Amino acid sequence: MTKDLYPAERITRVREATAAAGLDALLLTPGPDLRYVTGYDAIQLERLTCLVVPPGEEPFLVVPRLELPAAQASPAGALGVELVPWDETDDPYALVAGRLGRPAQVGVADRMWAMMSLRFRAAMPNAEQLAAGTVMRELRMRKSAAEVEALREAGAAIDRVHAIVPGLLRAGRTENEVARDISEAIVAEGHHTVDFVIVASGPNAASPHHEVSDRALRAGDVVVVDVGGTMPSGYCSDCTRTYAIGEPPADFAVYYEVLRQAQEASCARVAPGVTPESVDAAAREPINEAGYGEWFFHRTGHGIGLETHEHPYIVSGNTEPLEPGMAFSVEPGIYPGAHGARIEDIVVCTAGGGERLNNVDRSLIVVDA
Amino acid sequence: MTKDLYPAERITRVREATAAAGLDALLLTPGPDLRYVTGYDAIQLERLTCLVVPPGEEPFLVVPRLELPAAQASPAGALGVELVPWDETDDPYALVAGRLGRPAQVGVADRMWAMMSLRFRAAMPNAEQLAAGTVMRELRMRKSAAEVEALREAGAAIDRVHAIVPGLLRAGRTENEVARDISEAIVAEGHHTVDFVIVASGPNAASPHHEVSDRALRAGDVVVVDVGGTMPSGYCSDCTRTYAIGEPPADFAVYYEVLRQAQEASCARVAPGVTPESVDAAAREPINEAGYGEWFFHRTGHGIGLETHEHPYIVSGNTEPLEPGMAFSVEPGIYPGAHGARIEDIVVCTAGGGERLNNVDRSLIVVDA
Repeated sequence: MTKDLYPAERITRVREATAAAGLDALLLTPGPDLRYVTGYDAIQLERLTCLVVPPGEEPFLVVPRLELPAAQASPAGALGVELVPWDETDDPYALVAGRLGRPAQVGVADRMWAMMSLRFRAAMPNAEQLAAGTVMRELRMRKSAAEVEALREAGAAIDRVHAIVPGLLRAGRTENEVARDISEAIVAEGHHTVDFVIVASGPNAASPHHEVSDRALRAGDVVVVDVGGTMPSGYCSDCTRTYAIGEPPADFAVYYEVLRQAQEASCARVAPGVTPESVDAAAREPINEAGYGEWFFHRTGHGIGLETHEHPYIVSGNTEPLEPGMAFSVEPGIYPGAHGARIEDIVVCTAGGGERLNNVDRSLIVVDA
Repeated sequence: MTKDLYPAERITRVREATAAAGLDALLLTPGPDLRYVTGYDAIQLERLTCLVVPPGEEPFLVVPRLELPAAQASPAGALGVELVPWDETDDPYALVAGRLGRPAQVGVADRMWAMMSLRFRAAMPNAEQLAAGTVMRELRMRKSAAEVEALREAGAAIDRVHAIVPGLLRAGRTENEVARDISEAIVAEGHHTVDFVIVASGPNAASPHHEVSDRALRAGDVVVVDVGGTMPSGYCSDCTRTYAIGEPPADFAVYYEVLRQAQEASCARVAPGVTPESVDAAAREPINEAGYGEWFFHRTGHGIGLETHEHPYIVSGNTEPLEPGMAFSVEPGIYPGAHGARIEDIVVCTAGGGERLNNVDRSLIVVDA
C-alpha cells in the first residue's frame, strides 16, 4: 500500500518538473509536499528538516541529528536519498546554501514556516524564492489509482461517522458534547487524526466555519455537521450533512430541497474537460434561480488529498479543465441567517464522469427531538 | 479565565513593541502569535486571515467573509478591532498593501505559510520582511500569572495521563496499541488536542523522536513515553517518563540513575539571572562525568506556552538570563543504542527558583512483564 501510494519514482518526476520550471532547487520542509515526494510524515518543528531537490544532482534530506533514526526508519530511508544530519549548534541553512552553490531561483514549500524561508533568504541572498506549489500542484492534483483508493477509504470512514450522527443529536445536548462523541468516532472509524469537527446548530448553522460552542440543541433546530480527519495513509476525509431536530422551519425545508438539487446538479456536471468554474456554476444557477443566491457566498469546493484544501479549487475564474484523477469537494450551502444548510461530498473525476466518494444519505435526516 | 489569559491591553503592548523594533507593521496569520494577541484560535487555511498591526494606527483583522461570524464570535470580536472581510474573488494581499501605504519593514508571523509571505512580498515589493518572532518572543516568553496557571493545569493533566501509563504497558502489546490508549487518555484528562505520543520501546527508545510502530513490547524492554497536548486554554503540556517491562538490563539501571540525578541538578539550577546554557550544563556535566556524554546529543530543553517548542531554548550558547515567568522543559536523555532513557518536566522560573509543573514519580517504574 505505502509503495503504491508513495512510489519511489515520484522523486524523479519532481526533479523533472523542477527542471522544467527553471528552478535550481526545491526546498521541501515537513508537510504534504515532503510526504508526497518521500512518504516521510516528518514532524514540523523549529529545527530544520528539509528535502533539497536540485534537478541536476542527487536530492538530499537535511535532518536534525536526533531525527536521524526516525528519518532512516521512514519511507524516505528506503528511497536511497542521502541523509545529512546536523547538530544542535550547527546552522542547517548555511549547510544547504553551501551545498547548492549560487542558485538563482529556489522553490520553497507552500507551507514552509516564514521563519525558515527568511533564514534561507539570509543564507542565499541572491536566490529568488518562488512558491514550490506551482511545481507540486501539477503533480499532486492528478491522483494515481492508489491515491483515489486512499481517498475512497477515507470517504467510507467518514460516511460511517455520519451514519452514527443521528444517534448523537437530541435536544438538550450541547454542540461541544456532540463534537466530543464525533471526534471519538472519527478515530474509531479508522482515522489517524481528527482535523475538524463543525457542529453548527440553530443560528450557528448560518456561519459556514462555526466550529462548536456550549449552545444546547433545541427542538426545531437544524444542525450542520461538517467533519473530517486524516487517515494513516495521509489522505483526508471531509463530508457535510445537515440534520433537523424534530420538525424544521417550513422555509428551511423549501431551500434545503433547492440545495439538494443544486449539489446533485454540480456533481453531475463533473467530467474530463469541464472547467471547475462550470461545476461551480452548476451549483450556483439553481440556487440563484430560486432566489437564494445572496445566501450562497462561498466557492463550491476545494481539491483534497494529502491536504484537506488543495488544488483544484471549484470557484468562479478557475478555467483549467478537469482531468481524470482530480478529486475535490462539491459543497454548496445556503445560509439565510436564522439557520443554514450545506451538503458536501468528495467527488473524483473519472473518464466516465464524477464518482462520489461519500454516499451516506443526502436527504434531510430528521431525528426525534 | 479567557480575559486573564488574553487581556485586551496586550494589543497595546504589541503595538509598542512593534514601534520599538522600527517595524511599520506586524502581519499575524492564524497560529500562536495571533492567538496570543487576540485570543482568536483561527483555522489556518489557504484563505488569508491576518491581523495587521501598524504601530501608529488602529490594528485591523482581515478575514474571509465566510469566517466573519466566527471571528466576530471569537475573543477578537470583543477587542474592538476592525474586521475587514474579503470575498472569494478579492485579493486580500492587495487589500492589506493598499491600507498600509508603502511600508519599509514588516514583521511576518514566524509560522506564516511561505505561500502567504511570498504573496505579501509580491503585493509590497519594497517592504523588507523580518520574522515577527523577534518582537513576539520578548512578550510571549515572559508568562503572566494566568499563563503560568494555565501551564500548571496542563502539567497536572498530563501527569494524570502518566499515572495510568503503567497499567497500559505489558509484554505483547504493540507501541501503536499503547499509543491509542494514551491518546484517548490525553483527551479524557482535559486536553483539547493530542499533539504527540511517543512510545519508544527496546531499541526504539534510543531514537529521541521515534513516534510509534507495530513493535510489540517484550519483557526486559525499557519504554520512553513522551506525550503532550493542547488544553482548551491554548497552552501545551509535555512530559516524559521512562518505564521498564520487568527487570531492565543491568547497564540501563546504572545510567538511568545518572540521568535522574542530572535532571534533578538541572531543575535545581533554575533561578532568575541564571543563563539557559548554565541549566543545560547542569544536566550535561554529571552525564559527561559518568562517561555517557556522547549519548546525550540534544539540547536540554525548550520553552513552552502556546507552542510546545518556543523561546527560551535551554541550549549551549543561550546566555540570555532567565526571568520569573519563563517556562521550559528540562529533559536530558541518554541513548546508548540498544535502549535509551529520558526524563522531562516543565519548569517555570519563579523569584525563588524553579517550580516543576510535572510531579509524577521520576524514579524508574518497573511494571510486571
